[in-house]
Amino acid sequence: MLLVPIAREGPVPIYRQIVERIVELVDQATLAPGARLPPTREFARVHAVHRATVVRAYRDLRALGYLESRPGAYTTVRGRLRPAGVRAGTVASGVRWSVPGSAAARLAADEAVPPAPGDAIDFASHAADPTLAPRREVWRAARRVLAADRSVVASYPDPRGLPELRAVIARRMAVHGVAADPDEIVVTNGTQQALDLIFRMLLGPRPDVVVESPTYGMVLALLRLHGARVHPVPMAADGLDLDRLRDVIARKRPALVYTMPNFHNPTGLTTSQAHREALLAICEARRVPIVEDGFDEELKYSGPAVLPIKSIDARGVVLYLGTLSKVAFPGLRLGWIVAPAEAAARLTAVQRVSALGASGLGQAVAAEVLGSSRFEAHLRAAHRVYRHRLQTLVAGLEEHLPAGVRFTRPEGGYTVWLSVPGRPGEERVLFERIWRAGVKVVAGRTFHVRPTRVPHFRLSIAWVDEERIREGCRRLGRALR
Amino acid sequence: MLLVPIAREGPVPIYRQIVERIVELVDQATLAPGARLPPTREFARVHAVHRATVVRAYRDLRALGYLESRPGAYTTVRGRLRPAGVRAGTVASGVRWSVPGSAAARLAADEAVPPAPGDAIDFASHAADPTLAPRREVWRAARRVLAADRSVVASYPDPRGLPELRAVIARRMAVHGVAADPDEIVVTNGTQQALDLIFRMLLGPRPDVVVESPTYGMVLALLRLHGARVHPVPMAADGLDLDRLRDVIARKRPALVYTMPNFHNPTGLTTSQAHREALLAICEARRVPIVEDGFDEELKYSGPAVLPIKSIDARGVVLYLGTLSKVAFPGLRLGWIVAPAEAAARLTAVQRVSALGASGLGQAVAAEVLGSSRFEAHLRAAHRVYRHRLQTLVAGLEEHLPAGVRFTRPEGGYTVWLSVPGRPGEERVLFERIWRAGVKVVAGRTFHVRPTRVPHFRLSIAWVDEERIREGCRRLGRALR
Repeated sequence: MLLVPIAREGPVPIYRQIVERIVELVDQATLAPGARLPPTREFARVHAVHRATVVRAYRDLRALGYLESRPGAYTTVRGRLRPAGVRAGTVASGVRWSVPGSAAARLAADEAVPPAPGDAIDFASHAADPTLAPRREVWRAARRVLAADRSVVASYPDPRGLPELRAVIARRMAVHGVAADPDEIVVTNGTQQALDLIFRMLLGPRPDVVVESPTYGMVLALLRLHGARVHPVPMAADGLDLDRLRDVIARKRPALVYTMPNFHNPTGLTTSQAHREALLAICEARRVPIVEDGFDEELKYSGPAVLPIKSIDARGVVLYLGTLSKVAFPGLRLGWIVAPAEAAARLTAVQRVSALGASGLGQAVAAEVLGSSRFEAHLRAAHRVYRHRLQTLVAGLEEHLPAGVRFTRPEGGYTVWLSVPGRPGEERVLFERIWRAGVKVVAGRTFHVRPTRVPHFRLSIAWVDEERIREGCRRLGRALR
Repeated sequence: MLLVPIAREGPVPIYRQIVERIVELVDQATLAPGARLPPTREFARVHAVHRATVVRAYRDLRALGYLESRPGAYTTVRGRLRPAGVRAGTVASGVRWSVPGSAAARLAADEAVPPAPGDAIDFASHAADPTLAPRREVWRAARRVLAADRSVVASYPDPRGLPELRAVIARRMAVHGVAADPDEIVVTNGTQQALDLIFRMLLGPRPDVVVESPTYGMVLALLRLHGARVHPVPMAADGLDLDRLRDVIARKRPALVYTMPNFHNPTGLTTSQAHREALLAICEARRVPIVEDGFDEELKYSGPAVLPIKSIDARGVVLYLGTLSKVAFPGLRLGWIVAPAEAAARLTAVQRVSALGASGLGQAVAAEVLGSSRFEAHLRAAHRVYRHRLQTLVAGLEEHLPAGVRFTRPEGGYTVWLSVPGRPGEERVLFERIWRAGVKVVAGRTFHVRPTRVPHFRLSIAWVDEERIREGCRRLGRALR
């Protein structure tokens, strides 16, 4: 008779102890395939446990593939075919996981970050502050969604995105002056995947792509994955240098121009309405698509609200990117593309084949939260916090930085861009000195295709409260003096 | 004085009416930038509403970028820069969204499905039955997750996947005889995205890839996106024809072999332990990675439980794919890869650059549900339902199909594969006849690189109850007679 040792006190439920012991006996081949198990009533009597406990254990063992039973017959041990020839230990296979010419092989290794003391101040993180997330709203939304519609977790999502989420996004785009039909909107697994879809649509063999210099480092990494030739056009004080842009477009006929008109990452610059119109006119004339990254559209704290380039895109050359990550929800991994209907259909085809679509649960929750009037209140509260932090950072930098260090004074977003007088190549040295002084920043080279003449650093207020910002400015001042 | 018409009865809250009216007035330029708004107390008095209502409306209008206010000053209309030159109507831009040589340009257009009557029986759907989804479990898990840890929605996820989910996956893999460290597991946005990551790692320029013939149609589509040359090796009664495989590997040195050893899609065949060992030995000897798609690992209803090829992969040539979509949660879009640590690190680098990672909320919920003992009970209940459906389908086909039509008799999964005597090219005709008879099936050509000699159809029991299955068999019999 099979006997299982049972601990009646302790954290492991009795049915679980039975399951684990029988798994062990089968795996050791002590119980052979075909061996009969005692009927549950008998097993329960012998072990002095409830019969329901044994029934539950047998049921789980069947689900795990360890037991089988047929109506009217004994429960038996199920055959689990193990090979004769499993070798002990691992011998290297000789398979080369690094394949020359593959997309993965084009990726650069990540740079190691310098050492920083344990109490370092985090001016590096560039996602919404988790302590400001409307967690209760998300939970309520999840409950409503799961109560109303089980298909959200239980069915494959529409590759374009849930209709209710696209409708809510269309309404938010209208707030920013963009008229978009739901069929001009494609929901993505965040901005990074949105860019991947766009590159798969627009990049042919050996493509040329124009980016701002500096620009978002992860876009440069993704362009490397795609094997693109990247043409950086410098950012002037009022945005992308338009004369240089005209020249590059004429010479290279690029597949697209990637731009961030609001609180540009990393410089924090926002372009004027006139600049946006001129940029659009140039790209319209040369039929070059603009990829407008509106990651900070919802983070305009003061000054005039300049509307997106997409709001004046009467001829359909702009692909607009929106995201939930900078507002509150980086963990939902949701973004969207607003595109002319033909482009949206092509992007959807790529989305379907490469990922099927974005998480139905996340999309349904996002639609509930974004569509609620409380979302405006959340935004407003977040604006107040971030605006004060940004003001504190600018005031701290004015007070503590040595003369000659320049920095931007954005009216929204998270980031300030430092330009430090120094020799070429000195950025690395200063970067390590700043980290050792207990301030995490991002080095300028992260945002550049080629090394720059003077050292640059990006500071972000997303994850740091005002007291820590003031302390960070003091440390930064000492490190740069 | 600004006067807003207010409807005191009706569905729209008063604060919302104020917001909408002021948005309208600003958009029409009736209220110009800089215009002062009345103090909230004054506005409330004049309109006979609570002051809190007005405060809320002003707050939302500030969040929307329509108003601004500074401490101690009047609330004013914020400048919203609209362009001088917005043209009426859309003029085609001349931008070509179809770029020759791009990945998207390699995708084939979707085939239209034939007409079917309204009460058609769905033998086409191949995802878990939504009515069996453990919705209450998911909701409880979501609540626990959101109560315990706000970072799940509010932070960027680890690109490898949440540590707790990788730990739970490692435990489930152990049930199937696969020993995997959490750092050999990469969580993905479903199997389709897992394949995309693998192809980006393993496919160099003009890559050769071996697939089973027939095989999963969406893999063929994804391989087209990657520009791969696909070499189909026929499925024999006991799995992939190993002599043909040896030959193709010797001639083509393929980048990988893609295989589905359990309840193969579309044929429903399961390979024996001996076949798995032989396939592994061939690929080990030639250093060709095997991509083992274990989509139906959890759907073994009867017969011996053959363990995955990965369970005997002592030298590390197998990349194993797991998914939650066939068990219960296609809407969560979660899958995983078990890979040698070096390959897992490379796949993570591609994941990070192309998508950052999978949804934190979905992952945390999945970890809770998969790690709970109730999951075994869910599996067991689902097995019972699907097993009965599969038995009903096989019995119905035996009863109603005309002589000469052959079909497989799987011991798990969702699908049965029909082979119908007929002339080459007749599949299309039969396919339309079956749909018109009120049965949705998937045509054999979906799963083939080249047209086959005889017509084939895939039937799936995932979404159909037993009564409908019996009726479907009757209709199918009539259509094929």
